[in-house]
Formats: sequence, C-alpha cells, structure tokens
Amino acid sequence: MVEFGQETIGKALNLVKAVTPARPSNPLYAYIYLEGTGEDLVVRTASAEVDAEVRIPAPGLAFSPLLVPPVFLRAVEAASGPKVRLAVEEGRIVVSSGTWEAVVNTAEPEGYPAWPDTGGGTELTIGAKELLRALGAVRYAASKDAWRSVFRGVLLEFVEEGLRAVASDGYRMAIYDTDIVVPSAGQILLPVSGADEAVRLLKGADGEAALTLHKGFITLTADTGEFEASLVVRLLEGEYPDYRRAIPTEFPTTVVLDKEGLAKAIRRVSALSSPKDHRVDVVFDGESRLATLVAEGDYGRATDAIRAGIAGPALRQAYDHRYLLDAIEPVEGEVVLHISGTFTPTVIEPANGGGYRAVVVPLRV
Amino acid sequence: MVEFGQETIGKALNLVKAVTPARPSNPLYAYIYLEGTGEDLVVRTASAEVDAEVRIPAPGLAFSPLLVPPVFLRAVEAASGPKVRLAVEEGRIVVSSGTWEAVVNTAEPEGYPAWPDTGGGTELTIGAKELLRALGAVRYAASKDAWRSVFRGVLLEFVEEGLRAVASDGYRMAIYDTDIVVPSAGQILLPVSGADEAVRLLKGADGEAALTLHKGFITLTADTGEFEASLVVRLLEGEYPDYRRAIPTEFPTTVVLDKEGLAKAIRRVSALSSPKDHRVDVVFDGESRLATLVAEGDYGRATDAIRAGIAGPALRQAYDHRYLLDAIEPVEGEVVLHISGTFTPTVIEPANGGGYRAVVVPLRV
Repeated sequence: MVEFGQETIGKALNLVKAVTPARPSNPLYAYIYLEGTGEDLVVRTASAEVDAEVRIPAPGLAFSPLLVPPVFLRAVEAASGPKVRLAVEEGRIVVSSGTWEAVVNTAEPEGYPAWPDTGGGTELTIGAKELLRALGAVRYAASKDAWRSVFRGVLLEFVEEGLRAVASDGYRMAIYDTDIVVPSAGQILLPVSGADEAVRLLKGADGEAALTLHKGFITLTADTGEFEASLVVRLLEGEYPDYRRAIPTEFPTTVVLDKEGLAKAIRRVSALSSPKDHRVDVVFDGESRLATLVAEGDYGRATDAIRAGIAGPALRQAYDHRYLLDAIEPVEGEVVLHISGTFTPTVIEPANGGGYRAVVVPLRV
Repeated sequence: MVEFGQETIGKALNLVKAVTPARPSNPLYAYIYLEGTGEDLVVRTASAEVDAEVRIPAPGLAFSPLLVPPVFLRAVEAASGPKVRLAVEEGRIVVSSGTWEAVVNTAEPEGYPAWPDTGGGTELTIGAKELLRALGAVRYAASKDAWRSVFRGVLLEFVEEGLRAVASDGYRMAIYDTDIVVPSAGQILLPVSGADEAVRLLKGADGEAALTLHKGFITLTADTGEFEASLVVRLLEGEYPDYRRAIPTEFPTTVVLDKEGLAKAIRRVSALSSPKDHRVDVVFDGESRLATLVAEGDYGRATDAIRAGIAGPALRQAYDHRYLLDAIEPVEGEVVLHISGTFTPTVIEPANGGGYRAVVVPLRV
C-alpha cells in the first residue's frame, strides 16, 4: 500500500486520460495500464496516434502490469483527499481514503500496445513554454476533414532560424517561429491529437522538455516536479505542400486594429451573416480611420465600426468570419492586417512582434 | 425611435425566448411577435403549451404587430449598451447602439396565435417566491417519458391547508405544501414546460403574482419592477392518480443525515454502480451510527460511510442513486429519511420543516 497526494495523482491521471479514445479501434485502448515498479507507479494510456505515460514516485509499490477500466480514474477522483491510498489485493486495485474505498477489477495486460523502444534517435532539449506557445498558436488552423490527410497534422519544421510550427487546412494557415535553435534539419508531421496531447503535457511542465526524433514517431518527456510525463506520438506520412508559396510578399494596404475590439465586432455582426458562407465584409477607410464590418443574410443586415490605423488605398474585403476570428485569437493587444489584395491572402500578425503569423484567404465576392 | 436600458430589455427578452421551440410544430412559433402600443413594447413568443409576453414601457413607440426571426434577440444582445435604440423603418426593425446597427427583416403577423381572452376566470393573488419554491422543488419528479401523459405534468392542488404542488413519474414523487391560502378547491395539471416557464418568470418577480384559472388554461402575471411579464399555460387533461395512497404512514426506522454529506457519498459510490439499475445499497446501523453506501457493478465495488442519527431497527435498503439524489436535492441542512420498509416507499423531508416532501420507491433486491 502506498499513499499519494490526491492533487498529484489527480494531475497525473488527468494528463493521460484524454488519450483514451471514446470509440477505440482496439478494445484494449479503452483500458488504462498500471504497473508498480517498486520505485514508481506507471500509468499508461494508448490510442492509434498517441501513447501517454506518467511515472509517479511510489517507493515500495511493486506489482506486475495490469489493466484497469476508466472507472479507476473516477475512483481516485472520488477520494476525499488530501491523501489517497493505492494497493493491489487479490489481483484487484484498492483505492481508499478516509471512509472511501473502491475495489476495481483488473484485466490481463496481454496484447496491450508496448511502449516503443526509445533508445537511439536524435534528442533535442527545448524550452517547454516556447514549444507550448507554438503548438497552441497554430493548432486551430489544421483541418478537421479527411480530404487531405497532411492538413490534419501540425508541421514541425527544423529551419536555421529556429523550430517552426505550421498548420493549414488549405484556406488558412498559421505559422509560429520559435527561438528554439535546433541542429537537425527537416520536417515532421504530428497528428492533431498528438499536438493537443503535447499541449496538455507542456502546460504542466517546468523548464526544459526532451524531444526525441525517431523513424516514424517522436517522444516528448517533461518533468512536472511531482512526476515525469512522456508521450509517444506516431507521425503522419505524406508530403506537406510548399506553404511558403501561399504567403504574399507585397501588401498595398496595412491596417492596425485593437484585437479585442475587432473580435467583438466580428462576433456581433456575424449574428446576421449568412450561415451558407459566413461572410463578413470589412471596409477599410483611411480618411475616417474606421474599419466598418457588414454582414448580411436572409434575416437582415448588421454593421459595426471600429477605429483603425490604415496605410494605403481604401479597400473592401470579404472574409469567412470564423477564419478571421480564429486568426486573430492568438494575438494580444494590437493586430496588424497586411492586405495583399481583394482576392489574394491577407497576412495577420501581432503589432508587437513575436513568432505568430496567420494567412487567411478572402472570400470571392 | 425609443431607447431602452440594455439590461432591462435583455432581461425581458431572456424571459420569453425559452418558450420558442427548437423544432416548432407550427412554423410561426419560430418567430417572435412584436408590437408598439404607443405605451409599451409588447414581445410575445408561443408554443403548443405555453405563450409568454412581456410589456416593456416604451412611450411613443407605436407600430402594428409584426413578426421577427429569433436573430432579433441576438441583435439586441450584441448592442454595446448601456442603451439600445429600437425603431421601425420601412417595415424593418432597426436595433442600434453606438457604432452598432442591425436591420432585421420582419414578417406579417397573420396566423400567429392570438393571446387568449383573459377576461373572467378565478383570480388569485399569491406570493411569487412561495409559488417559485413549490414549482422549483417538485418539478424534477415529473416524467420525461410519454407512457402516461398525466405524469408529464405538475399538479397544482387547491386544498384547505394551502396550495400544493405534486409531481411524479410513478416511481418517485415530490410534494410541496405552500402556505398560500386559496379559496377555490380542485386540481389543475400544468405541462412541465409551463412549470419551467413559470419558474423563470417568478424568479424575476417581486412580491405578488396573479394566477387566473380559466377553463383549459391559466394565466400567470408578475411585475418585475421594470416590465410586466405574463404567461398563458394550456393545461393537461386526464385524471391524476390518487397519489395520497402511495404515501406510507408508518415508519419503523427514521434516519437523520447531513444532506451535503449524503449527496457527496451517493455521487462517489455511484461511479461504480451498474448502469443497468443504478443501484446503491445503504446500510443503516444504529449502533455504529453510520450509514454505509455500497455500489457494485461490472468494474468493481465502492463503499463510503457517513454519520447518521438512526432510530429504529437496522436496515439495508437499495435505491436508484439518481432518484435518491434528486429527492434530497431541494433539502438544505439535515435530511430525514422515514423508512417504511425494504420494499415500501421511503419518505424524505428536511429536518427543519418546510413544505417539501419526497417519496422514493426502493429497488427490489
């Protein structure tokens, strides 16, 4: 029997539980793998794309690998804290705390996917927070649809200037340039589920994380101070299109706006935009220093206007309001719209610099 | 053009918007009725069971009845406040505030259900808060299923001791005895949607509400201080079973428990109960002064224990944990379980009195 801080074990289990798929392709993926090594409690979850593992210090807790149903997580959550006791009795896991006791049935671990051999590979030490910002900022732009599988991934590119994250669905794109200097050159393509799980892991991480590149998969390991957490993310295959060609380089009109004001105005007028094309028109007028947003649908028309610093010729642009809102979301403070033309992509970035950039294709009007 | 406080008109619209059905049987029910009487802005929504109306003072706003799509509500919400202007221009409603303007298309009001003639009827003046408590406390026990339509209603009974509210689904029952003294005798049966809408209306009401009984429907009118709100609720037909026969009168064992402690224990152990019968067993032991809760399902077993004052023989009862939790929910502080037997109903009420009582049938074990 070993005692854990409820908060610690709760945090560790929360980290791995998101991996467990709701409708698993392999029924064993519905289970959670537990092992007591004598030094650590190992908790592992698996899916087709991502495996996650936490190792919580538990000196003296030694038991052979076994599988528990997801209700094990609820049995730990339900404990009244601040301490939770864990024991293996007659092949069952006993979770107890004060008056609370749950005896959870277990299953044999046979057939459960093995943690891959993580020896070899190229190991990089990177700032956890910077990688978190990069994945968190671009992830929205990846495609939810299946039509082109590479667009359902987040590209990590090892370029001279630093590690770069890119995501796109073919209509919009997000790029984040980190200051993580990396020796290796090349690209890897993470499935979106892997990027999401990495974001969860990195949120709890302090300082540095270890990213190791293998053939076909990566591992990401971070120490939260209370326990160690690792991911295995199986990489997507396929050639990512040359996204650089989609980024315009000349911008006749440049607009500076308050991000929160713009977001609010988009949300407001979009209430009356057509659900068919989600179109919102934006009229930029340098003389009045106003950006006027107009949405029109079957039920009527809405307009709102916000202050804007406008350099260059006046323009009327049409955007999918969802794409515009997504693109400015990672920006804080003032946002800059670099407008290349009415039918060519607009580049969006924070006025105060930082590694984030978005590219949005306007709607054809 | 008339100006409204955004908070006032927002509150008024919120009150009526819940009535608008998601999938209306009559397509006109999807619309909102507006009228400017010269004194008030009248806003009305309708469904098969409930019509709702608010009258917001708007001197000088005069326009003929018209219908607007639900996006009108969003156009008012989107305004930046603190004032919202409303005007009718060329047959369209213009909602504006600062830089914000929405022009909402309208439709002819022909065919929209007329507000019933509310003359005549028996008018009762009742405390809004007490009626709110009564409907709010019993509403959960009404049936969501269609098998017996009277159980999909909330019974209001005019008895000598005061107005009583009753709801049941045949397996459990909730009763609330108000101190509202009423002259009239008899019963009326509100559809659950009508009870819910009445709860919404009464939440914003101060002091007294007017309840008028008509043949086939009731009206409920309350003044919020800022506007007047009214409901027409069409009554359910059918004879309500004699619920008094389901209330036992002899209780060999009586148990007093802390409500929050019991609720927490039920929630915890239910994590491991079988999703087939939602069974939780409760063992009452007067000697140890403990109530021990046990749930067992395919994945294991959970137990928890809480302090209990127990008078009478020790017992083991089995309940559907959802029914037990619902029944104690309206209770604050200590809850009393009057146990008539293992297979006969348990009566639950607050230890400190008040008009609430619940009757729960144990599971057959």
